[in-house]
Order: sequence, then structure tokens, then C-alpha cells
Amino acid sequence: MELTIISPLDMHLHLREAEMLDFVLPLTSSYFAGAVIMPNLQQPVDSKDRLTHYRERIVNQCKDHGFEPYMTLFFKPYPANFLDEIKEQIIGIKLYPAGITTQSEQGVGELKEARDTFTIMEDLNIPLLVHGESHGYVLDREEEFLQTYLWLAENFPKLHIIMEHITTRAAVEFLDKYDNISATVTLHHLLLSLDDVIGGLMKPHLFCKPVAKSPRDRDALKQVVFSGHEKVMFGSDSAPHPIHAKECAGCAAGIFTAPLALPALATLFEQEGCLEKLQLFVSDHAVNRYQLQPIKKNIQLVRKPFVIPEKYGTITPFLAGKTLPWSYA
Amino acid sequence: MELTIISPLDMHLHLREAEMLDFVLPLTSSYFAGAVIMPNLQQPVDSKDRLTHYRERIVNQCKDHGFEPYMTLFFKPYPANFLDEIKEQIIGIKLYPAGITTQSEQGVGELKEARDTFTIMEDLNIPLLVHGESHGYVLDREEEFLQTYLWLAENFPKLHIIMEHITTRAAVEFLDKYDNISATVTLHHLLLSLDDVIGGLMKPHLFCKPVAKSPRDRDALKQVVFSGHEKVMFGSDSAPHPIHAKECAGCAAGIFTAPLALPALATLFEQEGCLEKLQLFVSDHAVNRYQLQPIKKNIQLVRKPFVIPEKYGTITPFLAGKTLPWSYA
Repeated sequence: MELTIISPLDMHLHLREAEMLDFVLPLTSSYFAGAVIMPNLQQPVDSKDRLTHYRERIVNQCKDHGFEPYMTLFFKPYPANFLDEIKEQIIGIKLYPAGITTQSEQGVGELKEARDTFTIMEDLNIPLLVHGESHGYVLDREEEFLQTYLWLAENFPKLHIIMEHITTRAAVEFLDKYDNISATVTLHHLLLSLDDVIGGLMKPHLFCKPVAKSPRDRDALKQVVFSGHEKVMFGSDSAPHPIHAKECAGCAAGIFTAPLALPALATLFEQEGCLEKLQLFVSDHAVNRYQLQPIKKNIQLVRKPFVIPEKYGTITPFLAGKTLPWSYA
Repeated sequence: MELTIISPLDMHLHLREAEMLDFVLPLTSSYFAGAVIMPNLQQPVDSKDRLTHYRERIVNQCKDHGFEPYMTLFFKPYPANFLDEIKEQIIGIKLYPAGITTQSEQGVGELKEARDTFTIMEDLNIPLLVHGESHGYVLDREEEFLQTYLWLAENFPKLHIIMEHITTRAAVEFLDKYDNISATVTLHHLLLSLDDVIGGLMKPHLFCKPVAKSPRDRDALKQVVFSGHEKVMFGSDSAPHPIHAKECAGCAAGIFTAPLALPALATLFEQEGCLEKLQLFVSDHAVNRYQLQPIKKNIQLVRKPFVIPEKYGTITPFLAGKTLPWSYA
């Protein structure tokens, strides 16, 4: 039994830099036609030079893979002429409320001060990708941030706003309130609840931001994804950290899923009896919502056991050691 | 400035076994007049032999410290003649709902099957100490277990039931519903919320069961402790794990507070302007609720900086590296 996925896209990916980039990039570029590349490097990608340099670094590493890196800028107030000049080179601008996640200390504090930039983005048709968490109690952050999404959606009705890696029933319910709102959902948030992270032993390799929420929240994510909701796209948020940054006294947030995401998603969609909707989630919805013309690239999965390695280099992947019924051909 | 605490008691303590016991015992027995010793060893303390052996092991290690180990049995259905014979050697029986916490796999499954034992304990005046968590979603476990406390309190009105290491506003509110209910509160649950554990980096050394809850829950604990509530006693739940069991892929639950608990509590009570109530929390309430006659032992604290070590042997303590204004004389 075979399964062909046409031009799979990962709409939220961390490639990091230097050796880590060299190592993880082929684990995405071999299996996807494109990915949205997060800009939260040690030095955020917030200038034309940095963007060009980072894009070239990526493209040079995966020339033969038929892979398009959809670049993003790190949000800050930008002038209109800069954005007009750079808009063809980016898929969108990523906004991190300050201090919320890995290397986001330079994110936006007072969001409303950024309103000029939002207006320009709206005029230039540049999407806004958002890490939507407030600074409140860890489990309330996403729900509290819905007020900000509401403010954005109402004040900038032509701005395409993507709620990245949503984790709550409240976010799912918010999704349909405004036409200009889309969402990405990760693989791991379809599988995990907080019980998996801290309900037994504490599991650093299952720790990410936003943290997995209740089983009830996870079920809402599954429902909206497996129903084939047209505003919901796959974004892995695959975020590699070396083991020493995970198994220590202060464990970094991020789950590495890139090399196993498609076989694991096929397994999940099959279990839910909706394998025919996988193509929508991992490609078609993104093509429609972002108006993309992705590289033509067919990825074949076959029904053959895939034993997920315990390690990829220095990284412990999601589902390490588990066996999936689907593997790459 | 000096502060004398008369016969401080730790009403919930894990001493472990073998070398770990040798190492951690003096860090309690030097500073407390007595402690309630948890029975969840690799082989639970559930027979006269095991109880006698464990008690002797402890007593031999701290002969010169003026320290009373208040022993507990691991709950299971016990016959009346056994309990009648052993009652003078124990302070109570500790009940773990099966599988909830470290080495509690042998705890009680169907609680109501144990009702004969509860009746005998009630008749013999043997307290019931309870790890009160259900098997539900990790953050709901304590609140869900209140149904079980209610069942116990109503069906065994003369049984002294101690809600161990409470962490929620709901448990605080439940406390006053029945005369036969008491509670212990740890040091760390007065200081931590889930934000500290997983709100930034993930912190294995701040991970314990029950896991710290919301700031709102922590504030309810502080309120009931600092108000001097007579049913609330200090129980450290100090639970040492070597660093390799904490900084790894599956981190054990437990926070080691024994050697710094009293100076840290003095600091907290002073900050809250109720230093005069510290004696009640760390001794008098337990003496009254359990009807104890503790060993006479005055512990002196002085206003001198206490830099908490980064390590005690192989254990990272709570507040490692922090400086407290109070230290032991």
C-alpha cells in the first residue's frame, strides 16, 4: 500500500544556524516541498542582509532537494519602503510577544505601538504570523492572547493573521470568528496533553511552548484537524535542541519532529479514518490560505514499519524508539 | 536577633533507604524534634518486621540528635488484631491511591474495598494520612479526590484524616467542612506555581507531586498558612533524588527541602509579617491535632545570611544557591 503526498509543506519550522542547520535541514528538505522558516535566531532575522544571508545559507545546503524555504522576518516596526522592497522575498512576518519563547526577548512589547507596521503589511498583503501567548499564568497564556488576535483581526481586516501552533479549545473556537484568521497545528499537540509532560515522570523531550494543555483541549485540536477545516494548516514547529539542553536543570522548550512528521501524521489520519484529508492538512490548505505555488514534489509513503531512531545526531526526536506503520518509500 | 522554635516537627518526610537515608537523615534530625516518616520504600513498610527494621535503622543513625521518627505503615487492608498490636509503634497509616506517586504502585485501587480497615483504624484511633490525587488530568487530580475525602470524612467521623501536601484553593476550602480533616502544607508549595516549573525553562528540581498549581491556588495556601489556621501543619514532603534521576529524560518527582526548611519558613513568615505564627505551623498545630508529646528540643535561628549550597551530596536542594536572611545558630 502506498500513499502519495503532493508537495507537502511545513508552515512553521525552526532550522537554527551553523552545524545544527546543516544537520536538520535535509531532514525537512528531503520530505517537504517547502517550509516556513522561523526568524528567531541568536540575532533575529530583521534586516535585508540577514534575510538574504540566511536564505542563501539554506538554499546552498539543499540545492538538489527541490525545496523552497519560505522566509520570514522577525517582527519589529518596519518602514513602508523597506517592506515594499522586501515583500517578494518573504512569506510573512513573525511576531513574538517579548520574552515568551526561545530567543524571543526582542519581540514586541506594547503591540499597539506597532500599528503602523500592521497597516503597511495589510496594504502590501504581507501575512502576520503570531506566537500568541500573553505573559500570564502558563496555562492561560494562549486564551488570554485571543484578545490581541481579536484586536488585530478587527483593526486590520485584510491582514492575513496566522495563529501559530494553537493548543486550546478556545483558540479553535476563535478561528471561525474572522475570515482573516488562519491557524497552524503541530503534530505533537495532536498527540500530547499536559499529562504526558508532567503527569507521570517529567519529560523534557515532550516540553514545548505553548505547552500541551488538557486532554479536552487536545481533543478540540484533533476534531478541527481531522474534520479537514480549511483554515487549519500543518506547521510542525519542529525545534531541535541538543540533549544537553534538554536533560539538565533548565530544559529548553521545543520538540523535534521534522524527520518523522509525515509518517506520524499518516498514522494518525489513518487511525481517525480520514487519511484522504491528510493532503489538505499538509499542503492544500496552506496553498489556498497563503496563495502559494509550491514546487511540484511527490512524497511517497509506504506501509512498512518505521522505527523512529532514539537519536538524530545529538537530538532526541519525538516518539523516539516507537514504531510507525508508515515510512518513506 | 534570634528566634527559638520549640520542638519543630516535620509531619511528612521521605528518608528513603541505605546510603540515601544515612545522608539525608541528619539533615532533618539535627533540626527537628520529630518527623512523620513515609513508608513508600522499594518494599513498602507494610508489616511489623519491616516497620521495626526501618525504625531501628533510623534510630541507630540519629541517637544523639533527640529526634523521634513517627513511623507510618503503607496502607492496605489490615486485620484488627494486627493493628491493635502495632498501634503504639505508628503515628498513622499512609494511603496512596495506586500508581499516583513515587513507588506507590502498591497503593489502594478501589478505596471502598478498604472500608473494614478504616473502621478498625477509627476504633483504634489510628490516623489516616492520604496522598489525595485521583487518576485524572494532572491539574484536576487533587480537586477530583475531594470526593473521596468527603466519603471518608462522612463515613468515618472519628477517623483523623490528614490531607497531605495540599496544593489547591479547593482543598483549602474543603478543610473546614469536617472536624476530622487536617492538612499538611509543604514549604515549596508556598513558594511555587506551575509558572516556576514549566512557565519558562522546564525545571526538574522544582517538579513534585502534586505538581504546583496556579498562582491563585498558591495564594490560597499562603492565606491559610499565614492566618495560623489550627488544622494546618507543616509537612515538608522533602524527597531527595540524586541529580541523575532529575536531569534526564524522565525526571523523578520530589523536592529536597529538609536542611533549609526552617530558615526558609522563618523568612517567609517574616515577609508576611506573622513570624509569631511560625511556631504554630511547624509544631503546635501538629501537637494538638495528633495529640503528641514531642521531645523537648529548642532550635535556634539567627539573623545571619544562609547561602543554600548548590548541592547536598548528589542532591540539588530547593533554592540552591539562594541566600536566606535566617540561618541555624
